[in-house]
Amino acid sequence: MMLPTDPAQNLAKLIRCPSVTPAEGGALAVLEDMLKPLGFAVARPTFSEAGTPDIENLYARRAGDGPHLMFAGHTDVVPVGDEAAWKHPPFAAEIANGEMYGRGAVDMKGGIACFVAALARHVEETGGPSGSVSLLITGDEEGPAINGTAKLLQWASARGEAWDACLLGEPTNPERLGDMVKVGRRGSLSATLTVLGRQGHAAYPHLADNPVRGLMTLVDALLDPPFDAGTERFQPTNLEVTSIDVGNPATNVIAARASAAFNVRFNDTWTVESLQAEIHNRLDTASRRRKYRKDRKEPVEFELAWRDNPSHVFLTHDDKLIGTLARSVEAVTGMHPALSTSGGTSDARYIKDYCPVVEFGLVGQTMHMVDERVQLADLETLTQIYRRFIGDWFGSR
Amino acid sequence: MMLPTDPAQNLAKLIRCPSVTPAEGGALAVLEDMLKPLGFAVARPTFSEAGTPDIENLYARRAGDGPHLMFAGHTDVVPVGDEAAWKHPPFAAEIANGEMYGRGAVDMKGGIACFVAALARHVEETGGPSGSVSLLITGDEEGPAINGTAKLLQWASARGEAWDACLLGEPTNPERLGDMVKVGRRGSLSATLTVLGRQGHAAYPHLADNPVRGLMTLVDALLDPPFDAGTERFQPTNLEVTSIDVGNPATNVIAARASAAFNVRFNDTWTVESLQAEIHNRLDTASRRRKYRKDRKEPVEFELAWRDNPSHVFLTHDDKLIGTLARSVEAVTGMHPALSTSGGTSDARYIKDYCPVVEFGLVGQTMHMVDERVQLADLETLTQIYRRFIGDWFGSR
Ligand SMILES: [Zn+2]
Ligand SMILES: [Zn+2]
Repeated sequence: MMLPTDPAQNLAKLIRCPSVTPAEGGALAVLEDMLKPLGFAVARPTFSEAGTPDIENLYARRAGDGPHLMFAGHTDVVPVGDEAAWKHPPFAAEIANGEMYGRGAVDMKGGIACFVAALARHVEETGGPSGSVSLLITGDEEGPAINGTAKLLQWASARGEAWDACLLGEPTNPERLGDMVKVGRRGSLSATLTVLGRQGHAAYPHLADNPVRGLMTLVDALLDPPFDAGTERFQPTNLEVTSIDVGNPATNVIAARASAAFNVRFNDTWTVESLQAEIHNRLDTASRRRKYRKDRKEPVEFELAWRDNPSHVFLTHDDKLIGTLARSVEAVTGMHPALSTSGGTSDARYIKDYCPVVEFGLVGQTMHMVDERVQLADLETLTQIYRRFIGDWFGSR
Repeated sequence: MMLPTDPAQNLAKLIRCPSVTPAEGGALAVLEDMLKPLGFAVARPTFSEAGTPDIENLYARRAGDGPHLMFAGHTDVVPVGDEAAWKHPPFAAEIANGEMYGRGAVDMKGGIACFVAALARHVEETGGPSGSVSLLITGDEEGPAINGTAKLLQWASARGEAWDACLLGEPTNPERLGDMVKVGRRGSLSATLTVLGRQGHAAYPHLADNPVRGLMTLVDALLDPPFDAGTERFQPTNLEVTSIDVGNPATNVIAARASAAFNVRFNDTWTVESLQAEIHNRLDTASRRRKYRKDRKEPVEFELAWRDNPSHVFLTHDDKLIGTLARSVEAVTGMHPALSTSGGTSDARYIKDYCPVVEFGLVGQTMHMVDERVQLADLETLTQIYRRFIGDWFGSR
């Protein structure tokens, strides 16, 4: 029986499944077919929640005596956008000039294809790792992420699964394969700030209380000074005001309320709780400032509503995991990958509660774009890196 | 023939006409019937403009040999709001505890009723003024004001009408009859400021350009420092930000643009043109500030769109007009009215281009509210003030 040792063949099969979230699109079935000959026991749990579509997921384990390595990822992909704008159809896996085109090529069917190929080569060459390998693959990473990785981890854990380390195959490299390993992620916290004023006529401002003045004062306190200057492994914490809304169409009317929505990406200077306290403190202090409200003695009246599900910041400290991965990258590519925590959140934020996690995959440049594509050479390189990592991590090269 | 010497009777007839803008509601017909026995020639021109309702107006002149005094006002009224909340029906002119209830009681059918009564008494007592008196009454003051006073002035002027002075009967008194004569009005200028940024992901702010930062910088320059400290007859110029709108529902997305709408009420330190220049100058200077944009070298990119039809500031300098009115108020009430320019704009802004204009009417406290009402005693007092003013202004007491 032919094992799935060719990452390009694996990827072509996966791309041809139109698995735009929440559709499974055949992608998990294709993956199951690749894994079974490698000795995996495959489960395909479907998770449901009111108000969200049902989502199929996959958990596969190749049991062995020894440590347990998890590879995590997702087969769902973002919509194709303007399909007519694609040079090659988004679900055809056509190859041109050494590149394979298709939605998910780099984010992240490509990463899955390479890991499966790497493991198949390891099995072919050595009989397989001296331990357990599992694949934890969701169909709900690009969507609401309600019925995905978080539930799949709970589901597997409840069945006695436990892991020593995880490699997440998201596209981590900004420009070239070997640029960057992610060893943590910033936290993310969002809120809506509402200032309560008093409606009135623009010609009689003393009879009203324009909430925009109060909002200007409070938003100033959110934007300045900076929260920190960054830490050894993290960028400075950054706050973006994503919206300000008053919604008053009348030019001669002072509005009753004004609100601002903001998002903070924060580093390990903070926890969710300490950052919330800092923000509350800044707002309380600023609410008594009178730069724009010289005629007002009372503080700005405001409400702060935190959005659900903040992401906690984390930094992985597992030297074996990080070192083995970084040395594998270097051995295959000659590059010293940056150990970074930049960018957005990923499903690593869920996995880190179960075991140490690092992230390494393809080059992300075309992800989520028209003409998403991957160099065939990169598929081979990443397969070699993963192959070396598996061997070295298990000590069974 | 009975002349309309009783202001309460005149007002009751006017209140019973439901003349909510743009409806004439019978109010101008009632007024015409009062004016004809006093010797007025009455015209009722209707003005039209695409996109606005046709509006009936009234111009009446009692010709005489001597100076020409105009009384100006409006018979249209604002909607009644929650009719069930009125203690007495809004178009019934019911009297309770010495007060007459009804929409328009003070704003400003009451002012018209008193002027007609004052003139009727003058005619009865002296045979009428030694000059011309005209009434310039619109049905479009509370609405778009497109087919109202501005066009009526043009219409009359084109027919050879010219005036020496105008008394506008809007409710000028904040608390007690005799508090305040208005001798000018602040200007009003509105604009929308839009900051153009670059959309992006909140986790990668360096790849985007959050327009909220630029808007914060520019709005700060509009709010601080003050434009002036006020002048002899005017309050300080004041700017209100009436709306800020980004309209971005996605917490992880940096928006592409952000806009703020603002309105300035300005005094005679400024003309429309000099104030626009000052605002442009503040924005240009602020656009190069980097308080919130320390990583940006290029100035904030913005667009400024002035709203049509700014109101020009004006101050009336006619000593005879102002002095005669102030002395009439004092003679009847014993009060020294403030000569004020406070509050919003009024149709005086159009009249001032034709002749000097002052404003004096009832107490405005219940205007535009549920249970709008007027004290019967105030109707008699205002009639006496207007009666004295007419006599003294024409020198025919
Ligand atoms: Zn992804
Ligand atoms: Zn009015």
